[in-house]
Amino acid sequence: MELNFAKRMAYIQASEIREILKVTEQEEVISFAGGLPAPELFPIREIDEVTRIVLKEAGTKALQYTTTEGYAPLREWIADRMNRRLGTSLDKDNVLLTHGSQQGLDLSGKVFLDEGDVVLCESPTYLAAISAFKAYGCRFIEIPTDGKGMDMEALGEALDKTAKVKLIYVIPTFQNPTGRTWSLERRKKLAELSSKYGVAVIEDNPYGELRFEGETLPSVKSFDTAGNILCTGSFSKIFCPGFRIGWIAGDKEIIRKYVLVKQGTDLQCNTIAQLTIAEYLKRYDIDKHIGKIVDVYKKRCDTAVRCLERYFPDTVAFTRPEGGLFTWIELPEGVSAREILVKSLEKKIAFVPGGSFYPNVHKENTLRINYSNMPEEKIEQGLGTLAGVVKEYM
Amino acid sequence: MELNFAKRMAYIQASEIREILKVTEQEEVISFAGGLPAPELFPIREIDEVTRIVLKEAGTKALQYTTTEGYAPLREWIADRMNRRLGTSLDKDNVLLTHGSQQGLDLSGKVFLDEGDVVLCESPTYLAAISAFKAYGCRFIEIPTDGKGMDMEALGEALDKTAKVKLIYVIPTFQNPTGRTWSLERRKKLAELSSKYGVAVIEDNPYGELRFEGETLPSVKSFDTAGNILCTGSFSKIFCPGFRIGWIAGDKEIIRKYVLVKQGTDLQCNTIAQLTIAEYLKRYDIDKHIGKIVDVYKKRCDTAVRCLERYFPDTVAFTRPEGGLFTWIELPEGVSAREILVKSLEKKIAFVPGGSFYPNVHKENTLRINYSNMPEEKIEQGLGTLAGVVKEYM
Repeated sequence: MELNFAKRMAYIQASEIREILKVTEQEEVISFAGGLPAPELFPIREIDEVTRIVLKEAGTKALQYTTTEGYAPLREWIADRMNRRLGTSLDKDNVLLTHGSQQGLDLSGKVFLDEGDVVLCESPTYLAAISAFKAYGCRFIEIPTDGKGMDMEALGEALDKTAKVKLIYVIPTFQNPTGRTWSLERRKKLAELSSKYGVAVIEDNPYGELRFEGETLPSVKSFDTAGNILCTGSFSKIFCPGFRIGWIAGDKEIIRKYVLVKQGTDLQCNTIAQLTIAEYLKRYDIDKHIGKIVDVYKKRCDTAVRCLERYFPDTVAFTRPEGGLFTWIELPEGVSAREILVKSLEKKIAFVPGGSFYPNVHKENTLRINYSNMPEEKIEQGLGTLAGVVKEYM
Repeated sequence: MELNFAKRMAYIQASEIREILKVTEQEEVISFAGGLPAPELFPIREIDEVTRIVLKEAGTKALQYTTTEGYAPLREWIADRMNRRLGTSLDKDNVLLTHGSQQGLDLSGKVFLDEGDVVLCESPTYLAAISAFKAYGCRFIEIPTDGKGMDMEALGEALDKTAKVKLIYVIPTFQNPTGRTWSLERRKKLAELSSKYGVAVIEDNPYGELRFEGETLPSVKSFDTAGNILCTGSFSKIFCPGFRIGWIAGDKEIIRKYVLVKQGTDLQCNTIAQLTIAEYLKRYDIDKHIGKIVDVYKKRCDTAVRCLERYFPDTVAFTRPEGGLFTWIELPEGVSAREILVKSLEKKIAFVPGGSFYPNVHKENTLRINYSNMPEEKIEQGLGTLAGVVKEYM
């Protein structure tokens, strides 16, 4: 007899990015497809040093089970940093460590979503957030966005006329996939609408530390008067992703619910990773390290933007990011980025077609370009070749 | 306005064990409550050495994102070991690395369970499996067990008369909480029933390597003719839990579904933990290391059993485990282990009342004793004191 799977398995599909990444494992491919940080900037020597210290001074603790909430000194550091940089007022009990910020999204689905509930999100939005929430049987309503973020009027209307809205999911800073950053005004307005309608906001913020220009803006969470806003963060882009340590921060009672849910999901995060990061933060100046990453990514971003200006037709629009890992290209209506990908892969250039970043109506004339994982010559060469493919296709 | 949470939040509760563990953080408490491995046996020096090698030889790879499936050489090692020890016929593509074997349970819930589906389980069963599956809105039907495992006649009847059975969840070797091990015959019969009724089996096996006496039995998975059986495993009890590396193994098409679900859940396991364990396995003889753990736990188990024989009244029944971390005590009907816990905590002795290990009808005259985390003198002293409390209460 055949096995019966859960209904959700009918709509859980392979991530297009992961499938493309498999193709790009051949070394000669120039890939703008992933969202990988630059590995040459990982602080390997320092990690080696602090790991030794942790194993020497607290070896049995570092290798044993620990609490679901996570290592208290690390949660304190996170709360303190968010308070200083993002305008929040948190302490360690507002913070739960998660297995990467991706787990923060999965747990949010588990805490908030029943089958048939609605998630409001930016259009387009982060691909793997769509997967995370979809597993809980929700519907998505896409809210239009522009260079200043989500359209607040459209959001208000959607909240007015839609039943069972449980979450508003947003990435206000250096958004994935568009690279755009929300204005201060929209941030305030979102907090206001969240409070007015009693709907939780997940403010996903894995890239916020990587600002190339302009001033750091306060988080949406900093305008939260009702305790409805949860904010994720991650060490993946400012330290390294291999440790899988991220966090979600919010109202203490809500975080307690997340803790209970995480207990049944996977008990806790990797213990030694938590202690190692905490030891690194004690001994090294992470701002100096982030400064190095920002310098490198800024140059790569500048190169990408210059290539997009120089090599691509004027009918092609794109983002000039103030930070983060991505820029976003809009081709003229009717042009298919998927078809361009087929051609560009023949020339060993990869990217992610933008259609996958829309939960409902896929805009196929869009594509995402990652610039963090490659030296400038390669960016220049790759975007030059891609521009050729695009022109030929158009 | 108040936020609305998912319906599941109404029945997700704090783990009683985790709450008790908080009490036992005071050093003077003798705790039989956790399921912690003995930290003095963690191979700290070796972990230090192989971590340095990994960081030196493959630092950027070890700290970067990797595939959802997990590091191929480690999956190969797992398949090979299962084939040699548990009678299976697997290769690396039958194996998905998970964030501890606990995540294997969560992903199983996600892959198989819709609201209202039924999970058949041993009575009693692993507490955190109840939490993991419950989050997907299932009902549990408890199947009676005895010293040889689950009652196969009762299982057959339940399968016959129950609609929407999606999973049979079992821990056939050194079960948590009872310490019991299933006979060969029952293992075969379970595989047969699983195939006959087209119901998936989750064979949870985190303790199987820790056998003190008798012969290793083939896994239920080894009798799987239909491809319905999934088997979990873990490095937590044979290496260390802090790395959070476990696995789930099964039919390739089903494992593909788990991979898709894990993508949206948390992308992947900790990369450096995977490489470090693989490096350890290449350079060291893990069987020798497991041998050390088994020697120590056997002595602790013998001490616990001797104390239970010597100090406790004859009306108290208990398991004589052939391996693993736990023994299980059944007090006479009407005696409440929860009430005994209150008294024993006054004398600084902790354990987990057995009621929590039953999803439906809590048998309150039972309790679980962990013996892996304490030297023999403490076991002797703690069980002596506990026996006094029990006698006084009775």
